Amino acid sequence: MDSRKITHHYNRAGDLVKKLKSENAPAPDVEVAIKELKVRKKALENKEKELAPKQEKFDRSKMEDLLKRRFFFVPSFEIYGGVAGLYDYGPSGCAMEANMVNIWKSHFVLEEQMLEIRASLLTPHQVLKASGHVDRFADYMVKDVKSGDCYRADHLLEGHLEKLLADKKLDEGLKKEYESVIGQIDNYGMKQLGELLKKYNAKSPVTGNDLTDPVEFNLMFTTSIGPSGLIPGYLRPETAQGIFVNFKRLLEANNGRLPFAAAQIGPAFRNEISPRAGLLRVREFTLAEIEHFVDPCDKSHPKFENVSSQTVTLYPAEHQIEGQPAVHIALGDAVNKKIVNSQTMGYFLGRVYQFLLKVGADPSKIRFRQHMFNEMAHYACDCWDAELLTSYGWIECVGCADRACYDLAVHSKAAGERLVAQVDLEQPEMIDVVEIVPEKPAIGKAFKKEGKIIMEHLAQMDKDSIKEFEDKLNSNGEASITVDNKEFNIQKTMIREIKRYKKEIHVRDVEPHVIEPSFGVGRIMYAVLEHNFKIREGDEQRTWLSLPPAVAPVKCSVLPLSKNKEFAQYVKKLSECLTELDISHKVDDSSGSIGRRYARTDEIAIPFGITVDFDTVNKEPHSATLRERNSTRQIRAQIDELPSIVSNLVRGKVTWSAIETKYGLFEGQETGAK
Amino acid sequence: MDSRKITHHYNRAGDLVKKLKSENAPAPDVEVAIKELKVRKKALENKEKELAPKQEKFDRSKMEDLLKRRFFFVPSFEIYGGVAGLYDYGPSGCAMEANMVNIWKSHFVLEEQMLEIRASLLTPHQVLKASGHVDRFADYMVKDVKSGDCYRADHLLEGHLEKLLADKKLDEGLKKEYESVIGQIDNYGMKQLGELLKKYNAKSPVTGNDLTDPVEFNLMFTTSIGPSGLIPGYLRPETAQGIFVNFKRLLEANNGRLPFAAAQIGPAFRNEISPRAGLLRVREFTLAEIEHFVDPCDKSHPKFENVSSQTVTLYPAEHQIEGQPAVHIALGDAVNKKIVNSQTMGYFLGRVYQFLLKVGADPSKIRFRQHMFNEMAHYACDCWDAELLTSYGWIECVGCADRACYDLAVHSKAAGERLVAQVDLEQPEMIDVVEIVPEKPAIGKAFKKEGKIIMEHLAQMDKDSIKEFEDKLNSNGEASITVDNKEFNIQKTMIREIKRYKKEIHVRDVEPHVIEPSFGVGRIMYAVLEHNFKIREGDEQRTWLSLPPAVAPVKCSVLPLSKNKEFAQYVKKLSECLTELDISHKVDDSSGSIGRRYARTDEIAIPFGITVDFDTVNKEPHSATLRERNSTRQIRAQIDELPSIVSNLVRGKVTWSAIETKYGLFEGQETGAK
Repeated sequence: MDSRKITHHYNRAGDLVKKLKSENAPAPDVEVAIKELKVRKKALENKEKELAPKQEKFDRSKMEDLLKRRFFFVPSFEIYGGVAGLYDYGPSGCAMEANMVNIWKSHFVLEEQMLEIRASLLTPHQVLKASGHVDRFADYMVKDVKSGDCYRADHLLEGHLEKLLADKKLDEGLKKEYESVIGQIDNYGMKQLGELLKKYNAKSPVTGNDLTDPVEFNLMFTTSIGPSGLIPGYLRPETAQGIFVNFKRLLEANNGRLPFAAAQIGPAFRNEISPRAGLLRVREFTLAEIEHFVDPCDKSHPKFENVSSQTVTLYPAEHQIEGQPAVHIALGDAVNKKIVNSQTMGYFLGRVYQFLLKVGADPSKIRFRQHMFNEMAHYACDCWDAELLTSYGWIECVGCADRACYDLAVHSKAAGERLVAQVDLEQPEMIDVVEIVPEKPAIGKAFKKEGKIIMEHLAQMDKDSIKEFEDKLNSNGEASITVDNKEFNIQKTMIREIKRYKKEIHVRDVEPHVIEPSFGVGRIMYAVLEHNFKIREGDEQRTWLSLPPAVAPVKCSVLPLSKNKEFAQYVKKLSECLTELDISHKVDDSSGSIGRRYARTDEIAIPFGITVDFDTVNKEPHSATLRERNSTRQIRAQIDELPSIVSNLVRGKVTWSAIETKYGLFEGQETGAK
Repeated sequence: MDSRKITHHYNRAGDLVKKLKSENAPAPDVEVAIKELKVRKKALENKEKELAPKQEKFDRSKMEDLLKRRFFFVPSFEIYGGVAGLYDYGPSGCAMEANMVNIWKSHFVLEEQMLEIRASLLTPHQVLKASGHVDRFADYMVKDVKSGDCYRADHLLEGHLEKLLADKKLDEGLKKEYESVIGQIDNYGMKQLGELLKKYNAKSPVTGNDLTDPVEFNLMFTTSIGPSGLIPGYLRPETAQGIFVNFKRLLEANNGRLPFAAAQIGPAFRNEISPRAGLLRVREFTLAEIEHFVDPCDKSHPKFENVSSQTVTLYPAEHQIEGQPAVHIALGDAVNKKIVNSQTMGYFLGRVYQFLLKVGADPSKIRFRQHMFNEMAHYACDCWDAELLTSYGWIECVGCADRACYDLAVHSKAAGERLVAQVDLEQPEMIDVVEIVPEKPAIGKAFKKEGKIIMEHLAQMDKDSIKEFEDKLNSNGEASITVDNKEFNIQKTMIREIKRYKKEIHVRDVEPHVIEPSFGVGRIMYAVLEHNFKIREGDEQRTWLSLPPAVAPVKCSVLPLSKNKEFAQYVKKLSECLTELDISHKVDDSSGSIGRRYARTDEIAIPFGITVDFDTVNKEPHSATLRERNSTRQIRAQIDELPSIVSNLVRGKVTWSAIETKYGLFEGQETGAK
């Protein structure tokens, strides 16, 4: 099918969905129409991918080679053969991640005065039962009947059909059918997946053996806390629950006021059935999560104006349904037009965008995609994923969800502790109060010990119940109430009066809503690495990384021009001064030409390099060269000045071009070995 | 018994141990003598504690109240009743821990150019089997036969005997016996513990029920990695193994050179049988570990002179055995006198000491205690614990162990990969080489395809095997070799010659030794909190923390004198400027007198406080007061200057007394509300 035709089919399907929705058609009809739409969308996306202008060439294997060789990250326990989905971060990766986390803390926690906490990773059953993870945090799995190998049922079915589709002689009808199944792959339940696997005769991809029926596999790692084996526990699948269970103390730490945000950074775990795609689908990962608690009646944000003119790429659910492309739009407009449901959500989208730029994401490869209503968790009111474009496609890296009051409500219920806040009323309000005033002695005499619970019950009755009770008393002279499953007859004489009056109140109870931006640090890191992977023009072998200085694992290199011993004292002095200024740096006095060593520092993204040469030794005042990684241009300055120049460059207080203007371009040393 | 008598008994026991050891007496005799000695030591310690001059009064419950109320840390999942041994760090605790970790990174990783990594927490069975944890990381446990409650057998026995000892009418002989058992409590095996529990009729402490016999309980949390259930795994009990398994890549990252150090900070887990003593014995904790790899032939350290004049308190094993007190000694002397076994160990002790001071430990409450030879892991050559004195006694907070080549050796063996380094020889060495030179065509003709593995085998034979092979060839004209379980007869004609020559080598293979300083971050934090917990003179209710600014959770408070709206703009401006300078701060505009609010900031150790008052508003240039927490003294300076003054104070670039001299002491504002 040509592209125009595909778009036409897609739009027709979209129109149908819109029509049905506007007519409030029965849910099943809408669902059928949406399924059809998804198939069309998949076809459209495929076509768009084909037609898109070729991206600059990206060689993933070259980047992976660099990342492994220079120890950004490697499979964990490699000498033992590794474990799928687990990675160890070497010095480069560890420092890069730490830099990203520090930028995150400064950008969010410090800037917004958030309350950062660090809760336990081990989590007992009842907490994750309440949150819904025990029941719903699962994927469908099939097993190879002979080898026992496990596969995610949907991934396996998709892969199987894609293999069938690769057959060029495939019948057009079958082709359409397979594509239709792939388009709906996220929608199938366990039973349907089993039927489809059978229907299309899917086998175990490695051995060709038969497969079992799909079963639900919960993705949490289980363990047992304490020696008795009686406290079943899990490794937390997200950090958020640690914040929700501490809500009361956090609210107190904020002097009882709404709104406020809590934040947490740390490991989370997901026992993936078949991990793949490197850092993008792993079993252990760093999450950075914010839970912003807000009065549901007021989701405005005092700092929204700071981001309202920021233009971002939004891909609203409507556009996905209607086959329209993503839009570039100012956040202020997006909130005004109700594309984004609140100022607070809009503010976070803007701040997330700024953060992604700070850590080095390419702005042309950032978009915010809104969840379609069938993707969204049932309790969420709105959800936007910050997606970064990588060689694996658009990858969800930050999820921003308005989770309404879901989390606090489920924990309130399960723990039996009301997790609410009180909000000052702007104007005191007058409310009507109705109160039963009992004749205490009469009740005490009639019911003895049980008088107490009866009076408590009477005090707690709501307006309507009191009205009913009063009517009965008036018509029958008595009314019955049920307390603790026991009925009591209350005589009219036992009640002194039904008091009605007005009362002024100054606060109201609020079940806060939660807006949650949740960052997958490893995914962002991987995407940023892709966005910054470069090859020097004219030299295919010289790969390098253009990471911003704030994110670069090491900020500066110090290189003696050669092994000549006279250089050592200057190298040592520079290193000490850089340490003094808290500038991480690397001395490379190994053999190898200076060009070769520059190339090595470029590979691990070191943005600045100081070289000690013969002019350093021979001429006074002693000076050395400073090289900038991206341009590979150099200046020459005094040894005493260089550390603070580097510090200012790294901290963004001065630009390289200003330094170049001040010191002039350096072309080559004048003296040599004596 | 009076103190003199106890000391006499102790010294006699010590003399016996020394005598037996100097005579190389049989091990069991020495052991008996040491057991006796330990009993004496315990008695001596108890007496010393009684006699010691009273410490300044420390009220633990008051501190615990402050830490909980101001959300330093609380039991995890408190609204669900909590889980023993798990704690959540609130904003104060989380920031304090992060500050300590940052100081640690800067003090160790940056200063020594260590290679920091972040390895997986989930660890497969085979790695921890190789390291010895699967077999040996266990405590003995007994259960209440009815309730199933679990107890650590040694703790339970000790507690039981202490209860018996509390009886003032107790027979003197029994008293001695019980004390003797307590003194040896660490030495008993599983069977002995069971017998002693029976003998003294120990029961379940809560219910009084009978107890089961002790069983071994491994302290690792178990889980299963992946969906098949076939990869048993654990949560790592320490971070060190993640470094050892990455040794080869780390060595490569250091250009193949020794010595170098790798570092790792992160969570570790220990499924304690019965956690107690707050942060001191928990199930989930932050470790910061250094593995310094060194040539066993050269444990000198180039920077040792930096610490050699540093005086520390050492409590050597000899002194513990001989009943002598700890000594104050310069590290240079300690290494010269071989009290500390190497410069590298000495260097780390000095650096650990400096670190503990930086984070606020009281120098009079720091000592390094050497492990006695029966305490030390069997593979370690030397081990010193940095202990901090708390209300729970001396607590091990940093372990510094020379682990020799143990770790790399066990992983080399288990993973089948030689984890060695090559060290340059100072002088090239001549070595004898013996080599079999085959007649390739003859071998190829005789053995066809198998010729290749035969020639590989001949090339790899060692000196002795070659000699044997040569002798056979010479006497029989042929010799058999076994390759891949198959025998081959090699004719003399297939060998051209046995070549013998001398070769110059420049490097040698080295199995590095590891020196490991391992920091329990939570324990250090708890001890530092105790060391800095204070009560304002004359006001029992005003508790506060004297943490150094670098460690304090929040650096500065900004307080409007009252709710007067005119103050808001100055508060906002100050807050923005502090954020700009990356100074964490807290605005407290809640109601409450300024004194009350100062007290609240003192509770969470905020070292500096800016107050906006009427003079700020009424007088130009606009100024505000700055208060120092420890002295509670104040100065007044311009609004524009204050943020950078605070920044300099916090970063230690200027002292409070210099600021006081410059700006003069502030006594009280001059104007009031208009």
